[in-house]
Amino acid sequence: MVAATPCNWAFVGTLNKAAAPCVARGRRLLASGRALQAVVVNAGNANCATGEQGVWADQRMAELAAAQLQLVPELVLTASTGVIGQPLPVEKIAAALPNIRLGPDIDPFMEAIMTTDLVPKMAEATLQGGARVVGVCKGSGMIAPNMATMLAYIVSDAAISQEELRRGWQEVVDRSFNQVTVDADTSTNDMAVLLTNGAAGPVDPKAFWQAVEQVCVELARKLARDGEGATKLLTVRVTGAKSDAEARKAALAVAASPLWKSAVYGNDPNWGRIVMALGKAGVAFEVDKVRISLQGIPLYAGRVLEFDRTRASQAMQAEEVLVEADLGLGDGQGVAWGCDLTEGYVRINALYTT
Amino acid sequence: MVAATPCNWAFVGTLNKAAAPCVARGRRLLASGRALQAVVVNAGNANCATGEQGVWADQRMAELAAAQLQLVPELVLTASTGVIGQPLPVEKIAAALPNIRLGPDIDPFMEAIMTTDLVPKMAEATLQGGARVVGVCKGSGMIAPNMATMLAYIVSDAAISQEELRRGWQEVVDRSFNQVTVDADTSTNDMAVLLTNGAAGPVDPKAFWQAVEQVCVELARKLARDGEGATKLLTVRVTGAKSDAEARKAALAVAASPLWKSAVYGNDPNWGRIVMALGKAGVAFEVDKVRISLQGIPLYAGRVLEFDRTRASQAMQAEEVLVEADLGLGDGQGVAWGCDLTEGYVRINALYTT
Repeated sequence: MVAATPCNWAFVGTLNKAAAPCVARGRRLLASGRALQAVVVNAGNANCATGEQGVWADQRMAELAAAQLQLVPELVLTASTGVIGQPLPVEKIAAALPNIRLGPDIDPFMEAIMTTDLVPKMAEATLQGGARVVGVCKGSGMIAPNMATMLAYIVSDAAISQEELRRGWQEVVDRSFNQVTVDADTSTNDMAVLLTNGAAGPVDPKAFWQAVEQVCVELARKLARDGEGATKLLTVRVTGAKSDAEARKAALAVAASPLWKSAVYGNDPNWGRIVMALGKAGVAFEVDKVRISLQGIPLYAGRVLEFDRTRASQAMQAEEVLVEADLGLGDGQGVAWGCDLTEGYVRINALYTT
Repeated sequence: MVAATPCNWAFVGTLNKAAAPCVARGRRLLASGRALQAVVVNAGNANCATGEQGVWADQRMAELAAAQLQLVPELVLTASTGVIGQPLPVEKIAAALPNIRLGPDIDPFMEAIMTTDLVPKMAEATLQGGARVVGVCKGSGMIAPNMATMLAYIVSDAAISQEELRRGWQEVVDRSFNQVTVDADTSTNDMAVLLTNGAAGPVDPKAFWQAVEQVCVELARKLARDGEGATKLLTVRVTGAKSDAEARKAALAVAASPLWKSAVYGNDPNWGRIVMALGKAGVAFEVDKVRISLQGIPLYAGRVLEFDRTRASQAMQAEEVLVEADLGLGDGQGVAWGCDLTEGYVRINALYTT
């Protein structure tokens, strides 16, 4: 992915301490304060835990792409995604780069970065005045929020200062990509990058961030829906928490619970598992104040409610299952996205060898 | 379970904030400083998130058992395990209690507390001088260490003071039951209880705690091996951490990783997933200093090692899979126990409705 001119950019990288060389390099580029003009990604090999050779291969990948694009390497961000602990055969990238055709369409990039993803993922928004925000991402497994947990690239032609970009980006990531969980495992190679080239001129920053968040939330939902083995999107909305951060944490605990995820798969309205997940979330919680509904059907309101189990189970047979929990303690609210846990997840990660 | 005389006892209960009435009651009894003489357990219904009725039913269960045993209710600990959020039909317990036959054998108790467990779990040790330590526990799913994460009862005829019992118990639980993970979900009803009646007379406290830890570790391994859907025991031994606590945390992160657990099921020596799990564990970690071996076969030593993938995969086809990771940073060591993640886990928790 390459822009016609250098872009302002912001970057959030994985918090996994086994972060790959590409993430470390991205952080260094970010710290330099310079602009960014291109991103080169390889899929299939994470180039992580590959020692000195890995650091060299990552830098080489940047240099090769830069030479091809007639840029300095410091304008090129690298990213790798795939199996951990295999030396990166950078000569394959050297051989392939001259054949890459650049065009105005983001689709080939979006498709090239996929690994176990079943579908490519894009979202877009247009601001008043015509500036656009377009985002693409990849990710399907090893997805847990300890930051972006996948590769995500959001580009815009809005003119936004570097300072403003970097100020607002973490917050949007916290409310979108960091609220996605597929399997509680955190990748070593994740990054979420926001680039703006300013071609469309100045915009209202508030409208810009709204558009960016809209795009990121849509991508977050697509990531969760395409979780390895998933048959359903699981959306968990928590209100009444002590703070927004606590609400997000509680929502995530429910979206990540293997027991609740299994129940979602089996259309089992076993709301006791929601109570369990909220109780272990590490946030303020009083079981007698909680209200829980599932697909709009009230199941618990500080006490056991009568409900039609058959109807509730039928309501769960949907593309999206919505859990709403009000903790009854404050004004905090937040949403998390996950998916059901199926035999398919196990098969993808066990029976098909890497 | 009833002792001939009141016992000294120690108790660790779940940290889940949706803790059931039995756990809250156990904490109150503990705080009272009084002795304990009996434990009454029901399996199949957790009596959790059941409001005022649940608190009443729990107290009623204690009173019924106490009347049957001709004890005061304060000498009787209650425990419930099973589905969350269903009113406890305490009249069934009232009807059943008169038919309970008491005998010297712990087996009927051990079997009665089982839920999705496939096998009953007991371990024992004998101290010099003849004092014995016998432990039983139940647990198969909703097992993650945020304390005992199951029901466990360890009894001994050693004479140990109440103060000494309560001083040492948490530490043993931290090194045994708290190092077991099946699915990262934390039950609302867990407790680990240690009782001594002193009939065998005074013992060396150090020898006593060694025997208790031996029994608890054996039970911990049995819990992990009997994890829902498990085909293998997964043992993770971490050395070279900054502290024992960090080693335990790192070991647990590997034992709990859905991706690594899936690989264990599929006999896939994909050690990159071990690196990933160590990196996200939240402990001091430098990828270049780590050494990893699997079933004794070195796979990584700060750099990618050559190894025979076929042989490594064959070595994984065993009842127990052993991961050893040396972080190369200090003297801390710790062990965690888990199991593989299989389609069976999903089926048990999804396709069979609760």
